[in-house]
Amino acid sequence: MVRIVAIAGSLRPDSYSQMALELAAQRVEALGAEVEILDLRQMKLPFCDGGKEYPDYPDVKRMQDAVSSADGLILATPEYHGSVSGVLKNALDLMSFDQFSGKVAGLISVLGGQPNSNALNDMRLILRWVHAWCIPEQVAIGQVWKAFNAEGKLLDDKLSQRFDEFAQSLVENTRKLRGVS
Amino acid sequence: MVRIVAIAGSLRPDSYSQMALELAAQRVEALGAEVEILDLRQMKLPFCDGGKEYPDYPDVKRMQDAVSSADGLILATPEYHGSVSGVLKNALDLMSFDQFSGKVAGLISVLGGQPNSNALNDMRLILRWVHAWCIPEQVAIGQVWKAFNAEGKLLDDKLSQRFDEFAQSLVENTRKLRGVS
Amino acid sequence: MVRIVAIAGSLRPDSYSQMALELAAQRVEALGAEVEILDLRQMKLPFCDGGKEYPDYPDVKRMQDAVSSADGLILATPEYHGSVSGVLKNALDLMSFDQFSGKVAGLISVLGGQPNSNALNDMRLILRWVHAWCIPEQVAIGQVWKAFNAEGKLLDDKLSQRFDEFAQSLVENTRKLRGVS
Amino acid sequence: MVRIVAIAGSLRPDSYSQMALELAAQRVEALGAEVEILDLRQMKLPFCDGGKEYPDYPDVKRMQDAVSSADGLILATPEYHGSVSGVLKNALDLMSFDQFSGKVAGLISVLGGQPNSNALNDMRLILRWVHAWCIPEQVAIGQVWKAFNAEGKLLDDKLSQRFDEFAQSLVENTRKLRGVS
Repeated sequence: MVRIVAIAGSLRPDSYSQMALELAAQRVEALGAEVEILDLRQMKLPFCDGGKEYPDYPDVKRMQDAVSSADGLILATPEYHGSVSGVLKNALDLMSFDQFSGKVAGLISVLGGQPNSNALNDMRLILRWVHAWCIPEQVAIGQVWKAFNAEGKLLDDKLSQRFDEFAQSLVENTRKLRGVS
Repeated sequence: MVRIVAIAGSLRPDSYSQMALELAAQRVEALGAEVEILDLRQMKLPFCDGGKEYPDYPDVKRMQDAVSSADGLILATPEYHGSVSGVLKNALDLMSFDQFSGKVAGLISVLGGQPNSNALNDMRLILRWVHAWCIPEQVAIGQVWKAFNAEGKLLDDKLSQRFDEFAQSLVENTRKLRGVS
Repeated sequence: MVRIVAIAGSLRPDSYSQMALELAAQRVEALGAEVEILDLRQMKLPFCDGGKEYPDYPDVKRMQDAVSSADGLILATPEYHGSVSGVLKNALDLMSFDQFSGKVAGLISVLGGQPNSNALNDMRLILRWVHAWCIPEQVAIGQVWKAFNAEGKLLDDKLSQRFDEFAQSLVENTRKLRGVS
Repeated sequence: MVRIVAIAGSLRPDSYSQMALELAAQRVEALGAEVEILDLRQMKLPFCDGGKEYPDYPDVKRMQDAVSSADGLILATPEYHGSVSGVLKNALDLMSFDQFSGKVAGLISVLGGQPNSNALNDMRLILRWVHAWCIPEQVAIGQVWKAFNAEGKLLDDKLSQRFDEFAQSLVENTRKLRGVS
């Protein structure tokens, strides 16, 4: 069975990135994949100092192991300063080829202003660097503060459909590239 | 007098980014500018949670104040996964337009492998987002583990000359753009 | 007097890039700068073959000379496939450091869909490569087919104001960086 | 059988991009795929004016048809001004989703100086925009003027091995993603 790990790069209590990640995870699960969400708000990660071992921070190994054993990833980030959040980049810095190589990722960003591809571009090039695949379908949610209703559902049907296509592509192509069912 | 704040995005004890930053800072000082190095290894910064205030972390305000009162910046980063380090991005995420707008920055990256512009590109686009200027001169030090001698000097004369031009451009153009002497 | 050359990377008869370029040029002129628009639709440029001389195409030298003698540039491009148009990139490929180094550029993109920074990012990094400056202020016009009225004026006041700030920054900072009045 | 179309963005008579493309094409053929090289030096393409039809330029339709019926692509470009060549971008501008969507691409760049990922990054983001896949393996050949021997073979064994891995990944993953043998 396809195994997906989902990580969002926001530590805000009411994070929209986490809400978007959740939505994507649900759709991916509905297609028969197994999804594990690693909520960085509930993990204790250090700043990456370029080293490989962080014995005082067992969550580093927990995250590494989860990604290692996954076939694919969903990454979501708030776009801070036209780029991926430092929180997410630091989490990615704590892993490397061992975790990412050959994995298949889907990318999501949320923004306060107009949608923009900057943070998505960043994640795509970072994941390429560690030899992961990124699906062509990606989602940038602009003006995210008015994107969800009180139940955490997307108000815009077109955007909701993009999430469907995103999940469909991620599951289907992870199956193809990883040879799992 | 031109005031420059210098920040490197590495927490490694023997960080090459910090060594490169030091070299650039010396040259900038030699041209009559005042440089303050903020060593992230000796500061205690939180992960950015999207908020503006971090009362438990006085170093946030210290960093913000230093950048606010500066005319320019030197940023140096190790290139992790073909991109700026999460450590540096997080530090930048803790500041915004108030600190960066209208400032003039010079950019440096260090890499274990061949030189590459990826992390430099990232920093350039991030600083543009917060309306800072970046000088065209930039430095990527490839195979950085063999770039310095035991005294921390650059072994390659051409590279050393690039640092001279970098410092010259940063000081001269900060003077022009900021109208300071 | 500040001299600006303006180039748009679209060959469409009713090109929005050209309309946006015109608007920016007018504002820059109103601030006391001299602007020359090089309309690629009325020039005959070859594809760049990596060579320096194109004797059969006098417009190459005409363009090179115009940019050489300018202090600054306005570049506008339609965003084709999330990137600068091949038409504009080819025109830039026909010039190099001799034309661009030390010049100051302002960047504009027009898009059919939502605004996006991709083509602007491309231009910024390309111009950096040839050691030009780019002002932090930039303009991306999304859904450009509904941005102008019949007289070629912008319908959105906020967008119009961005053009004002763009022109102001370009002229003011070109003066500072180039030491011209 | 996997069908690959190969295009290089250089018009130079002794183009290194074309030589690199040739090498990649041979390796891909050796793995059982069919490769068609579209040599832009022998085709007559117009500058893209944003339109869809170019009746005076039958090579546009020829190129479109070749890419439409392919499963994958090899794109090679000289890095001009830290970016993809205008020649290649213009060729890509003459096609769109109809040609590229769902296809699998491998990317190569050649540079006179140190290797760099800029043009590779550009191609990756452009192809993403038109919903193509790019394999993680990519090749940047720095100091390309000393990379080949008189017979057009690579002098550096490691680089040659990168071409092997590149071809292997392109053929294998095109088979997986496209469901062809």
